[in-house]
Amino acid sequence: MSHGPQWPLDPDRLLPAEPAQRAVARRIHRATAELPIVSPHGHVDPGLLLRDEPFADPATLFITPDHYVTRLLHADGVSLDDLAAGATELSEDRSRQVWRHLCERWTLLAGTSVRTWLEAELVDIFEVPERPSAGSADRIFDHLCERLAEPTYRPRALFERFDISVLATTDDPCSDLADHAALAADPSWQGRVVPTFRPDRYLEPERSTWVDDVARLGEAAGVEVGHYRGYVAALEERRRLFVERGATSADHSHADVGCAPLTDAEAGRIYAAALAGSATEAEATAFRRHMLGEMARMSCDDGLAMTIHPAVSRNHHTPTFERHGPDTGHDIPTTVEFTRALRPMLERYGTHPGFHLVLFTLDETVWSRELAPLAGFYPSVFVGVPWWFLDAPDAMRRFREAITDTVGFSRTSGFVDDTRAFCSIPARHDTARRIDAGYLAQLVVEHRLDEDEATAIAIDIAGDQARRVFKL
Amino acid sequence: MSHGPQWPLDPDRLLPAEPAQRAVARRIHRATAELPIVSPHGHVDPGLLLRDEPFADPATLFITPDHYVTRLLHADGVSLDDLAAGATELSEDRSRQVWRHLCERWTLLAGTSVRTWLEAELVDIFEVPERPSAGSADRIFDHLCERLAEPTYRPRALFERFDISVLATTDDPCSDLADHAALAADPSWQGRVVPTFRPDRYLEPERSTWVDDVARLGEAAGVEVGHYRGYVAALEERRRLFVERGATSADHSHADVGCAPLTDAEAGRIYAAALAGSATEAEATAFRRHMLGEMARMSCDDGLAMTIHPAVSRNHHTPTFERHGPDTGHDIPTTVEFTRALRPMLERYGTHPGFHLVLFTLDETVWSRELAPLAGFYPSVFVGVPWWFLDAPDAMRRFREAITDTVGFSRTSGFVDDTRAFCSIPARHDTARRIDAGYLAQLVVEHRLDEDEATAIAIDIAGDQARRVFKL
Amino acid sequence: MSHGPQWPLDPDRLLPAEPAQRAVARRIHRATAELPIVSPHGHVDPGLLLRDEPFADPATLFITPDHYVTRLLHADGVSLDDLAAGATELSEDRSRQVWRHLCERWTLLAGTSVRTWLEAELVDIFEVPERPSAGSADRIFDHLCERLAEPTYRPRALFERFDISVLATTDDPCSDLADHAALAADPSWQGRVVPTFRPDRYLEPERSTWVDDVARLGEAAGVEVGHYRGYVAALEERRRLFVERGATSADHSHADVGCAPLTDAEAGRIYAAALAGSATEAEATAFRRHMLGEMARMSCDDGLAMTIHPAVSRNHHTPTFERHGPDTGHDIPTTVEFTRALRPMLERYGTHPGFHLVLFTLDETVWSRELAPLAGFYPSVFVGVPWWFLDAPDAMRRFREAITDTVGFSRTSGFVDDTRAFCSIPARHDTARRIDAGYLAQLVVEHRLDEDEATAIAIDIAGDQARRVFKL
Repeated sequence: MSHGPQWPLDPDRLLPAEPAQRAVARRIHRATAELPIVSPHGHVDPGLLLRDEPFADPATLFITPDHYVTRLLHADGVSLDDLAAGATELSEDRSRQVWRHLCERWTLLAGTSVRTWLEAELVDIFEVPERPSAGSADRIFDHLCERLAEPTYRPRALFERFDISVLATTDDPCSDLADHAALAADPSWQGRVVPTFRPDRYLEPERSTWVDDVARLGEAAGVEVGHYRGYVAALEERRRLFVERGATSADHSHADVGCAPLTDAEAGRIYAAALAGSATEAEATAFRRHMLGEMARMSCDDGLAMTIHPAVSRNHHTPTFERHGPDTGHDIPTTVEFTRALRPMLERYGTHPGFHLVLFTLDETVWSRELAPLAGFYPSVFVGVPWWFLDAPDAMRRFREAITDTVGFSRTSGFVDDTRAFCSIPARHDTARRIDAGYLAQLVVEHRLDEDEATAIAIDIAGDQARRVFKL
Repeated sequence: MSHGPQWPLDPDRLLPAEPAQRAVARRIHRATAELPIVSPHGHVDPGLLLRDEPFADPATLFITPDHYVTRLLHADGVSLDDLAAGATELSEDRSRQVWRHLCERWTLLAGTSVRTWLEAELVDIFEVPERPSAGSADRIFDHLCERLAEPTYRPRALFERFDISVLATTDDPCSDLADHAALAADPSWQGRVVPTFRPDRYLEPERSTWVDDVARLGEAAGVEVGHYRGYVAALEERRRLFVERGATSADHSHADVGCAPLTDAEAGRIYAAALAGSATEAEATAFRRHMLGEMARMSCDDGLAMTIHPAVSRNHHTPTFERHGPDTGHDIPTTVEFTRALRPMLERYGTHPGFHLVLFTLDETVWSRELAPLAGFYPSVFVGVPWWFLDAPDAMRRFREAITDTVGFSRTSGFVDDTRAFCSIPARHDTARRIDAGYLAQLVVEHRLDEDEATAIAIDIAGDQARRVFKL
Repeated sequence: MSHGPQWPLDPDRLLPAEPAQRAVARRIHRATAELPIVSPHGHVDPGLLLRDEPFADPATLFITPDHYVTRLLHADGVSLDDLAAGATELSEDRSRQVWRHLCERWTLLAGTSVRTWLEAELVDIFEVPERPSAGSADRIFDHLCERLAEPTYRPRALFERFDISVLATTDDPCSDLADHAALAADPSWQGRVVPTFRPDRYLEPERSTWVDDVARLGEAAGVEVGHYRGYVAALEERRRLFVERGATSADHSHADVGCAPLTDAEAGRIYAAALAGSATEAEATAFRRHMLGEMARMSCDDGLAMTIHPAVSRNHHTPTFERHGPDTGHDIPTTVEFTRALRPMLERYGTHPGFHLVLFTLDETVWSRELAPLAGFYPSVFVGVPWWFLDAPDAMRRFREAITDTVGFSRTSGFVDDTRAFCSIPARHDTARRIDAGYLAQLVVEHRLDEDEATAIAIDIAGDQARRVFKL
């Protein structure tokens, strides 16, 4: 199965097997393969590009910060301590140990999207000549260390090599966005990096840190937040700053998408109770839902596209959370309901000119049942592409099969890599382009679409669609 | 991709791409392609066939009455006013404008089942020689107007050309079924058109119009409905009339399929409260569920097949409902539960001789989990084929894959077009036959079924199955 | 479609149609086809192998004990009386009648997994030369009777011929496991048959028989169960005996997987109330959930792998249950939720060394949404393979497609036949091996996996995986 010196990357990888369909898919993919990357939502640190320092070592580049990678190793019995989960820099010895854990368990990742991405990174970017294994771990480690020392492997050089036309980060509303400002002001930097407003913690009085968070928000905004109207004004003020710094979207992730509005009086009363620590759980939830509706209102006012990534049980294993913090591999999806929950928001703002609402899900049952029907009527609603656990070949196929019958291609979000693993960005976008090419090729060979239209659609969803939906 | 003068219709369209499977699918499809159409559930106006007037114009034939078509155009930003949604006749200028909206956005429909049907209608029925686009809109409009003026494009001629052996309409229990009677009495008409009893509004005291509706029901039935027993008798009387006029089924669509019975005393008490406007929401719901069980009892008595199309949030966007009325593209599906909810009905009537209960869903998760297991035990239960948003190539494949392992082919409903778009009927049935042929061909090439059996099954599910299940 | 004298079994059956993919699948399947069978969970009676008597007759071998088979015949209108459902021995005439019901309705089973298994049994084991039908029913019946009279068709001979390396039964905690002991002590018997601890009825105070069941449990354990601590000790004692007799797992099937712990005091209070018949339904449910958590604790202590098969509405049709008893074809799945429900157990025991928790489902929506994410983090959690209604070709494909992207192959349970139909065991395992070979072949031809790794994975999941997960 090996093709020449570059170990596993067949030019037809991820394309459908049937020869006629593959031939069409190959042509469609080629029309999109060289398009620049539009990355409208992700978690790359803008400081990475500002400082442009070499990546420290293989383990902290590929493994320790990425819960996509550590989780399966953990499930196989390697402790997060042994994996140095969360570490940002390691000694060579320690890094090599962590790297070995991955290589020894390479077969564990067989069939997963994580392996698809890692393979593409190792081969395409780092020219690793052999498959990871216990035997090859050290050789590959040394190979990677050499590459990382070269200037062409610094973040800015890779940003250029990846041909990223725009990259959105995810930012706390209290952030001064200093790295963004410095990067934009740097005359040696030509790239486009924009922040994203992500206010979850400030909207959830059920969190233990909420009172302090709100106080910080008030300070950051220079607004008195002792009462509800001030709190709303502080949020509006921070959004204004984000818009000024280039943000085009606001992202939201709560347990559900409830958005039933309260009267101002009721919202004010709960806000005061929450500040005083006396709000009930039901009141805190009602307030959070009210505020999601408020975020929609603000999006109508300031134009930030609104994206929602709901319904994850975060930090499922408390002992691990207490030892290693959040984003360590045990956020577990739950069911989610959109039709009824979003109705109050859509009644009010669903046909508001310029309002964009992008709905992501980890519960794929809503694709055909709720999201395609909603996006097929409301001019504001777009179906978010497969996300997180679903950002993978088989799930991406199911996505297109689930929604296209109802809503075609025009009402989806464009690809979103949502990653903190900088080097995985090209592989993720290429995977999506290949799977979309394969699905479009199926429509062509089944005579449901002509190839000229299919190709035009593939080109659109590989770039311009995300630009339109995220207003980039 | 174009094949001769008739622009997009490849003879192998919608058949699977793999050549061996396609060859089998083609043979199976050919065995069903010329069979007459059995349409056991739909929304065609019987007056159309009674009056047999020419269709007014292209826009009111293809666009304005059909929320399947208007919704995606609306999502793309064309207002329902600009689409003349709901209009039944338009001036040539206005019709041409509306038609242009569709043609300009033809690519918007790429990959959707709506486009599959429209293509088949334009090419197969109207011999349109080119693909719709901004450039071709006016030429196609003129072409269609010419055709519509010809006698062979009148409703009865098309009914004959479509080879419809029986067509069921959907009717209000208060309807006098005059058009049905007149049609049946017309010596120049040989077709079979039967009514369907659809009593939703009379069973839901939560509706604002319920008190008036019940009064009309009593009048229509000539029964005093001031008390619960009279109300039940009125429903029975109207069902009797429908049976007399040829109805073979009763259709039901509520928010859920709850059917827990009340005692007569409790039902009577709530009925009186509802008439007096003092029933609580919980009481109204309990009454509605009780009445669904009563409908099953009546079906056991009078033999009407009982069909249920549940769990849609109707008129999701109130401003649009208030301006344009119902059926304007914003009915959004919700989750639905059958196993527990239907148990009271199935405990009582599930093995009743001759009782037929056909269960449709827009929540495809119930296919493998609930509907196939239920239909695989209860002699009364049949799995409804994919409906509405799911009446489409990819979803139809998922349907067969989800249920066949458990329940085979014998316990499904036969195809149901459920359409108000008369000219789309042949395309919808042909799509189902092609997808079923493709699935059966997969079983054949995977040696799970012999081709002789597969062909016999395809023939059965293309016609006789619906006749049996709907007692036609 | 017939290939030689053995009527329907093509060597490529159930393999994907596309020639390149089929070629790979065929090679992968061949590497697993001759591996011994590991059957870690099922319902075969150990007495069958202890006594080693000839099977009585075709109907009681293939039809009467197997609700997978009787249910579709019942749905088609054959009464369970006519099918002699539950009978273990029938006169030749009666057996022949029952057999005819099946053969006459052979087409009814087209496309179902039941037919796939029956075909393999009839052809591969019994060398039946023709397809069942009304015309062939008697000839096949006679053919089967002849075979059943031969010594090579006795249970032990078949056990050897099937190459079953280990077979787990399912047993009541009060069972003395006498048949297991006698079998193990039989010098003429070389096979391995182990019991499984299945305590459902003793953990559900909502059952009408619970008080008596608990009393029997106390007697069997020789422990006083008048108070909660004694009851727990009795369960622990019976588990100890099962471990001593070779059990390696405990199986659980409740309406949900709730496991919220109670304090000992609260558990003791409800236990006393339940014994006194005064526990409320909510208390009984809380107690059952608490005890599921206790079962996890005991599994951590005694090492029994914990398996859960939840969320079935048992005996849905009470009239049938009252006449024919349980397991007669009307157990109907319901939705199930794992993420939140299992959290208390996983917080406590999710990373406990050696704890194995295998999660099965009939609600396939949880595969990608909940089970793969859970098994991809917790070292204790394994995703159970498709079970019952989902133990079938199309569903098995969906299973691999739903979870592999997230969790690869290493975190699944290995195949579980879960059957009481002894002769169906080889066909069930072979079906799984073929479908897995087909899915792995897809990864190979799409260049997502090399064939050497794919083959190694296929070999592992066909045997060693179940040995590891079930600790066999």
